[in-house]
Amino acid sequence: MVAHTELPAQVPNEKILNQDQIARCSDAKSFGHARPDIEDAVYVQNGAAIPIQNGGKVIPVADGKPERKARHHKEEECSLFVAFFTFVSYGVLLLVGYIKEFFNPPSTKEKNREGYVPLYIGFESFYTRNVYRRIQDCWNRAICSVPGAYIDLLERYSPDYGWTMKLTGKVIKCINVGSYNYLGFAENVGQCHDDSEKALKQHGISSCSPRLELGTGTLHRQLETLVSEFLGVEDAITFGMGYATNVLNLPSLLGPGCLVLSDEFNHASLILGLRLSGATVKVFRHNDSEDLERKLREAIILGHPRTRRPWKKAMIVVEGIYSMEGTICDLPNFIRIKKKYKTYLYVDEAHSIGALGPNGGGVVDYYGVDPKEVDIQMGTFTKSFGAAGGYIAGSKELINHLRVHSHAQTYGVSMSPPVAQQIITAMSTIMGRNGNDEGRRRILQLSRNVKYFRQRLRQKGFIVYGHDDSPVVPMILYLIPKISMFVRELTKRGVAGVGVGFPATRITGGRMRFCLSAAHTKEMLDKILEEVDEVGHLCSAHYSSIPKSKEPIEW
Amino acid sequence: MVAHTELPAQVPNEKILNQDQIARCSDAKSFGHARPDIEDAVYVQNGAAIPIQNGGKVIPVADGKPERKARHHKEEECSLFVAFFTFVSYGVLLLVGYIKEFFNPPSTKEKNREGYVPLYIGFESFYTRNVYRRIQDCWNRAICSVPGAYIDLLERYSPDYGWTMKLTGKVIKCINVGSYNYLGFAENVGQCHDDSEKALKQHGISSCSPRLELGTGTLHRQLETLVSEFLGVEDAITFGMGYATNVLNLPSLLGPGCLVLSDEFNHASLILGLRLSGATVKVFRHNDSEDLERKLREAIILGHPRTRRPWKKAMIVVEGIYSMEGTICDLPNFIRIKKKYKTYLYVDEAHSIGALGPNGGGVVDYYGVDPKEVDIQMGTFTKSFGAAGGYIAGSKELINHLRVHSHAQTYGVSMSPPVAQQIITAMSTIMGRNGNDEGRRRILQLSRNVKYFRQRLRQKGFIVYGHDDSPVVPMILYLIPKISMFVRELTKRGVAGVGVGFPATRITGGRMRFCLSAAHTKEMLDKILEEVDEVGHLCSAHYSSIPKSKEPIEW
Repeated sequence: MVAHTELPAQVPNEKILNQDQIARCSDAKSFGHARPDIEDAVYVQNGAAIPIQNGGKVIPVADGKPERKARHHKEEECSLFVAFFTFVSYGVLLLVGYIKEFFNPPSTKEKNREGYVPLYIGFESFYTRNVYRRIQDCWNRAICSVPGAYIDLLERYSPDYGWTMKLTGKVIKCINVGSYNYLGFAENVGQCHDDSEKALKQHGISSCSPRLELGTGTLHRQLETLVSEFLGVEDAITFGMGYATNVLNLPSLLGPGCLVLSDEFNHASLILGLRLSGATVKVFRHNDSEDLERKLREAIILGHPRTRRPWKKAMIVVEGIYSMEGTICDLPNFIRIKKKYKTYLYVDEAHSIGALGPNGGGVVDYYGVDPKEVDIQMGTFTKSFGAAGGYIAGSKELINHLRVHSHAQTYGVSMSPPVAQQIITAMSTIMGRNGNDEGRRRILQLSRNVKYFRQRLRQKGFIVYGHDDSPVVPMILYLIPKISMFVRELTKRGVAGVGVGFPATRITGGRMRFCLSAAHTKEMLDKILEEVDEVGHLCSAHYSSIPKSKEPIEW
Repeated sequence: MVAHTELPAQVPNEKILNQDQIARCSDAKSFGHARPDIEDAVYVQNGAAIPIQNGGKVIPVADGKPERKARHHKEEECSLFVAFFTFVSYGVLLLVGYIKEFFNPPSTKEKNREGYVPLYIGFESFYTRNVYRRIQDCWNRAICSVPGAYIDLLERYSPDYGWTMKLTGKVIKCINVGSYNYLGFAENVGQCHDDSEKALKQHGISSCSPRLELGTGTLHRQLETLVSEFLGVEDAITFGMGYATNVLNLPSLLGPGCLVLSDEFNHASLILGLRLSGATVKVFRHNDSEDLERKLREAIILGHPRTRRPWKKAMIVVEGIYSMEGTICDLPNFIRIKKKYKTYLYVDEAHSIGALGPNGGGVVDYYGVDPKEVDIQMGTFTKSFGAAGGYIAGSKELINHLRVHSHAQTYGVSMSPPVAQQIITAMSTIMGRNGNDEGRRRILQLSRNVKYFRQRLRQKGFIVYGHDDSPVVPMILYLIPKISMFVRELTKRGVAGVGVGFPATRITGGRMRFCLSAAHTKEMLDKILEEVDEVGHLCSAHYSSIPKSKEPIEW
């Protein structure tokens, strides 16, 4: 498992680290890749590489910062046989649906709407009735607890073949690998909760006003100052909903005549925001900087396709960690390209902020790049901070522009004060500002959990997508019946994960997605792995054909 | 002030009310219009009209329900002289800006972005620098308290002609007519707060997951059941952000080839949602059902402008109360048209839910129409419920469709549990389910406040837009310096209102907007009226030319 390492394009020379940097590097030893198909990430100490996982060669360091590489890599593909059966399984489901609806057409007439064109028709409704309905118990599951390391699910059953769901009244306590609680701050005890309670007492639950009018509370300003300090940028602006942060702010920065290079696996919020902006969007291959550069160069040379005039401005839009793929974005190369072509770079750190980097500073911190190199940093507080809402961070000018022109600022109600307080306390904890080492402990715990879980899962013979430091762990199952079987069986065995299939992925991309957390212990992970392995044997889901070492993996 | 009344088109005959209905009518006496240019709303008791405000004639009743009319009406227009000076005032500001920037062009180069095309250029930035900057202290004002009847503003000053703002450290306690706290539920004491605190303790601040995955808590389901009962519909779905409710759900219901008839003053969230959906949008004159019918008929006859094929489906999109105009939508006529042409009707009740109708049920309750007549009821919890988030309510089929296809459900994190609890408690209070008359008291208090304040403001000679039952009270000032003077002077005098000017309104539509609340007492309203009158005299803002009676107005 020795990885090959080559010189990153932007690193000029070797450099000796100082004591402080060595300490940081040693602390951060546990981050790094160990997949043979990914170039390794290595920390350098006095010119000699610290072999992070299974060895690696020396790579030089720029400006004393540890350098990591996560170039575009190819995930393990399924065999043609599996792909064929996946298509067949969907085909059979659809065929059965068509035959059924041919003989027994569904009523498209609603009560009191006689003579109306049906409000929702088409393939989506057909798919919902004939595919989703059969396995809908795997989604929208009701919970009745804090989404911590454990979660309480309410057991449900369907009396009518999946058309409706009813509660049995029983509660199933599960280990939670479904919520985005990366650093384990979703708690109802401790500092975060106590501070939120105080904020609720002092400021109430809502400001009943947008930020532009009378909705800017002291906590909002405090939060924005803290976010900018955490990220090492000049200023930040926060919003009440993470999804809306992308949708409503991209149109304030882009318009018709602008060029956007967008990763093919970008999140729906980015795609909607770009569509709203009216900019011309070119899609490049997932995390592939070479494809990006080729398409960017071509678009710049050709100009606007209709008028052939130069683009008003250009922007590269990527994510820190891709929530469905678990990939960590190839930031150093994107920065190199953006500097070369003088385009702007928008990085959505929704899943990476807090969960990645030695200081929890996201993908920027992970690669140790200067935060000012990323023109627009976006992220959400829903995940690592156990709260809700989103931010955009960058230069003072950018944030001042958004304060006036962002729809989310002008029309959306400002963030609920106890939610803002939760983020402030969680972020201060990560930054070590509340006088203990709790934040650092959580970051290290998550990092260890992630590496251990991913390697053990691979060792067991499952196909696992994404980079080894990514807390999003997609385990590929291909067939839709396997997804539902996994979700149901794991729930019975006390593990709550999330299944994802078409249309959220491509047809042959059905998967279970595990989101790891600093709240998980090694024992919990072992229990999950054991149950996943058992269910995997039940439905033959050990698809990986890469030979694995049987050596025990250290936590 | 005796209003003329005519037979509404859809009312077939007179009907004797039963005792229960009479009681409801008597309770609800305080709702109704009293403007000479609006047809009066009247409740009927045993065939004889209850003169709601200043008298009225008998109108018949359909199905025992009280009938109201609020047909399209024309607001008082400004004189040509005022319009001329308003344009001149903007012209002078822009001219000064152009001259200044001709001799001293602003730096469009950002630090570390040498050689880049500036990220934000164009008229918007110019307007921000040269118009908005001069009066930006009137917006984004910082608060440090619950937005109740009173609000604590943090005093600010600008050391550099409006480019930046700094806090002086002084707190100004103001009567709050800026927040959308219609029923006064924005409190940090009482049942709502206590219940939210318990929810925070039990469920934490966030579910860290979208509803589709593991984010459906017991409180969410409880809330949705309550909302559907409150509105008298089959089912409801809730989302974490009100603005996003429109933006992300309209595309799930409409697509290319669909026809939408949209009110010219519809909210930005509706406009964005419609743009995202790809439907063809025809705009009709504000609240004008005749214009709507003409345009709808024409569009149906002509079909799709390119292909001339029939539309896939058609939808009328309106609001309950228009947040900038204070108009109450002409729902009975819209329902008549939607039934005649078999189009769907989408009503955004963001400002009307809770604040309108004898039971706080919004515009549907206000007119006493059957809730099932409105195909899609949308609303937010930000306003009357003192919380955050939004809902869509309607038939079971509609909601089931959205549960699978809505982006806000699939991708956005679910509503924060204490926020959901705040809404549940506030809504139960309004519905009288917690064993006291508090909800009814608040509804009546708001209704009295609204009528008293609007009439007194008109009596003083100000131009006030909107219907007499609307808690949104826009007072027209035209000129931008008058808006800033009003905001600044009122703040000094202890009244916090919101000023609105171009581009949020048309150029001659600059205004102060007061949002009334059930938390206001008559004494507070008198104080506001006195201060508004004084500032109005200072800047000659008594524009109304309609002669007013000097008789004292009862609260």
